[in-house]
Amino acid sequence: MKILLTGFTPFGGEKKNPAWEAVRRLPDQLGDITVLKENIPTAFGAASRAVEEAVCRYAPDAVICVGEAGGRAQIGIEKVAINYRNAAIPDNLGVRPQDEPVCPGGPAAYFATIPVRAIAEAVCAQGIPAAVSYSAGTYVCNDTFYGLMHLISQKGLPVKGGFIHVPYLPEQAAGKAPGTPSMALELVVKALETAAAAVFGG
Amino acid sequence: MKILLTGFTPFGGEKKNPAWEAVRRLPDQLGDITVLKENIPTAFGAASRAVEEAVCRYAPDAVICVGEAGGRAQIGIEKVAINYRNAAIPDNLGVRPQDEPVCPGGPAAYFATIPVRAIAEAVCAQGIPAAVSYSAGTYVCNDTFYGLMHLISQKGLPVKGGFIHVPYLPEQAAGKAPGTPSMALELVVKALETAAAAVFGG
Amino acid sequence: MKILLTGFTPFGGEKKNPAWEAVRRLPDQLGDITVLKENIPTAFGAASRAVEEAVCRYAPDAVICVGEAGGRAQIGIEKVAINYRNAAIPDNLGVRPQDEPVCPGGPAAYFATIPVRAIAEAVCAQGIPAAVSYSAGTYVCNDTFYGLMHLISQKGLPVKGGFIHVPYLPEQAAGKAPGTPSMALELVVKALETAAAAVFGG
Amino acid sequence: MKILLTGFTPFGGEKKNPAWEAVRRLPDQLGDITVLKENIPTAFGAASRAVEEAVCRYAPDAVICVGEAGGRAQIGIEKVAINYRNAAIPDNLGVRPQDEPVCPGGPAAYFATIPVRAIAEAVCAQGIPAAVSYSAGTYVCNDTFYGLMHLISQKGLPVKGGFIHVPYLPEQAAGKAPGTPSMALELVVKALETAAAAVFGG
Repeated sequence: MKILLTGFTPFGGEKKNPAWEAVRRLPDQLGDITVLKENIPTAFGAASRAVEEAVCRYAPDAVICVGEAGGRAQIGIEKVAINYRNAAIPDNLGVRPQDEPVCPGGPAAYFATIPVRAIAEAVCAQGIPAAVSYSAGTYVCNDTFYGLMHLISQKGLPVKGGFIHVPYLPEQAAGKAPGTPSMALELVVKALETAAAAVFGG
Repeated sequence: MKILLTGFTPFGGEKKNPAWEAVRRLPDQLGDITVLKENIPTAFGAASRAVEEAVCRYAPDAVICVGEAGGRAQIGIEKVAINYRNAAIPDNLGVRPQDEPVCPGGPAAYFATIPVRAIAEAVCAQGIPAAVSYSAGTYVCNDTFYGLMHLISQKGLPVKGGFIHVPYLPEQAAGKAPGTPSMALELVVKALETAAAAVFGG
Repeated sequence: MKILLTGFTPFGGEKKNPAWEAVRRLPDQLGDITVLKENIPTAFGAASRAVEEAVCRYAPDAVICVGEAGGRAQIGIEKVAINYRNAAIPDNLGVRPQDEPVCPGGPAAYFATIPVRAIAEAVCAQGIPAAVSYSAGTYVCNDTFYGLMHLISQKGLPVKGGFIHVPYLPEQAAGKAPGTPSMALELVVKALETAAAAVFGG
Repeated sequence: MKILLTGFTPFGGEKKNPAWEAVRRLPDQLGDITVLKENIPTAFGAASRAVEEAVCRYAPDAVICVGEAGGRAQIGIEKVAINYRNAAIPDNLGVRPQDEPVCPGGPAAYFATIPVRAIAEAVCAQGIPAAVSYSAGTYVCNDTFYGLMHLISQKGLPVKGGFIHVPYLPEQAAGKAPGTPSMALELVVKALETAAAAVFGG
């Protein structure tokens, strides 16, 4: 079994993106699961194209894109990707789409095909806060998630797809207003390992 | 130099108290600072008496009591201990004081004499979220903090005193509502080490 | 022009439902817009059937279902209805669906066809906090919203559909933990009037 | 019986201060209680001097200073004024004190002498969210509260003193991030009337 995990480049003035920091620390092999990793740009459309290329290159059995959700206190296993873009800040290419579809003519939404509830329960069982989330926002994260699910659907690929949001790292929250939650990198890594195993029922 | 750190027993249905879990993992020696540790009961008055006994026994140069503040996202360096008790839930001896003083006739409040702002900055500089806090609540934590400062003041002891609140552990938050923040035990331990050093200007 | 607004019966131990309290106080006529009102049960499926009956009876040009979102601080103009049920508490008929579709075989989601962004801006312009929301949850509110959009889509009705979430009333929040936001009934009523007018570009 | 209520001028870029907007709308007479109102500057020290002048001029039986606490969802009846200034933003005279006492040599804190718990309960009983608060912050609000209690204490005045924090108005929150709580002006006015009556046991 092969699983591809992607992590974004830093954005919004941050020096690190906890998603990629965690993904790149994953072992290359988790039991009988081969873990493939890809760093993708925080840019509308470009991120989806990078995911598509990596899917072609690796032909994985499952893909989980991982992104930063500053302000959340727990790992968020995303259930829904929506066909909608609305950016509060420009992406890393300076583009700031407002109130437009990801894919004109595409369905309103796709559900993740990874087992979101089982993953959330497995991560919690490791003592790491996690929950199913019903909104991946309207920025590059949702854009990439929708792009992935649309690719899988349009091409009929035998690939499970999903998206996981992770909190700020402690070092990011340390410079922000009191009350900003965070999660230690080691826990995020362990959560992603647990999620990868849970995708294949492990 | 000798510093005493105390941590409470679990309360409110929890199996662990992150304060004591962190305190008991501190090294016994931090450079030239000797670290003394005491587990104290989560009970009004009884906790203060346990602190007083430990202060007599060890004659430390500084005392920091450490307590759990479920719901907070950062290490809280408490500035103010108030002469007031008001418990939302019973303590571990089943006592639930309502709207009464810690010490009848005592001053309304004491300020911590450890350098709260320098400690908060030192902890943040380690990449761990921390802030000065202006309320230690009205439960056993504040009770113990007030008792400590009253002891030092009444007896004119050459001891610096303070209180630090720590978030839930991830494993505690994993069983609670999404949005409940937490902090990894390793970070709490490192924060307390940093605080202990900062008390002596280190 | 005719618009139908629905409000739910109280649930979750509350004595009032702010959604219906606001809807029933709306004037019957707003300029040239006729306002029709319907009280619907807080029950999976049953609410959707009540909406369908009212749509048949009144043949409105637009329908906005209104529901309570305890814990939110602003009027939420919902963008997305998802084909998913997952109830944390039983509905008013004692049913508590877990991880199942609203409509087996239906699309993953529908977007509201009322102008959500224009409505949010119009309500804010009245000095009332409002925002577009990208998740209507997984309880009876989302169920009814999905049911409405599915009805409109399946039957090809010339009807605009949407959902608006409203905060607790102050009297509800007064009995809850500090920090629970609320909104005065008069403001909720004014927000719904503004929304109804904005649906028709007014 | 005479009660003086004060409200601050707008600060922090806001056009209105909900505290003064509410205070100035209070009736001049509440049963047998005469209500005196004073608009005071949002400036360290200057606000306290304005309160002192008004106390000399009116010789009230009670004084409640009222201030804005943006971000809170309920009326906060403050219990504790601390001898500490630490401003995150400059006051209206451009002064931004850092880590200094309100009154060098003064006690660490004063408790309000209005019946804070009875007031919070009376306001809640009116269906308006309210709670006793244990921190009035470290900005001009706390400064003025401390100044008032110090004046009463030093001069031995037969005057009850306290401080009440009020949320943003809805029109203020409408321009801020979703999640920012607010309270309708009518409710704030009613809360202050209720508080004034409760000071005299009414």
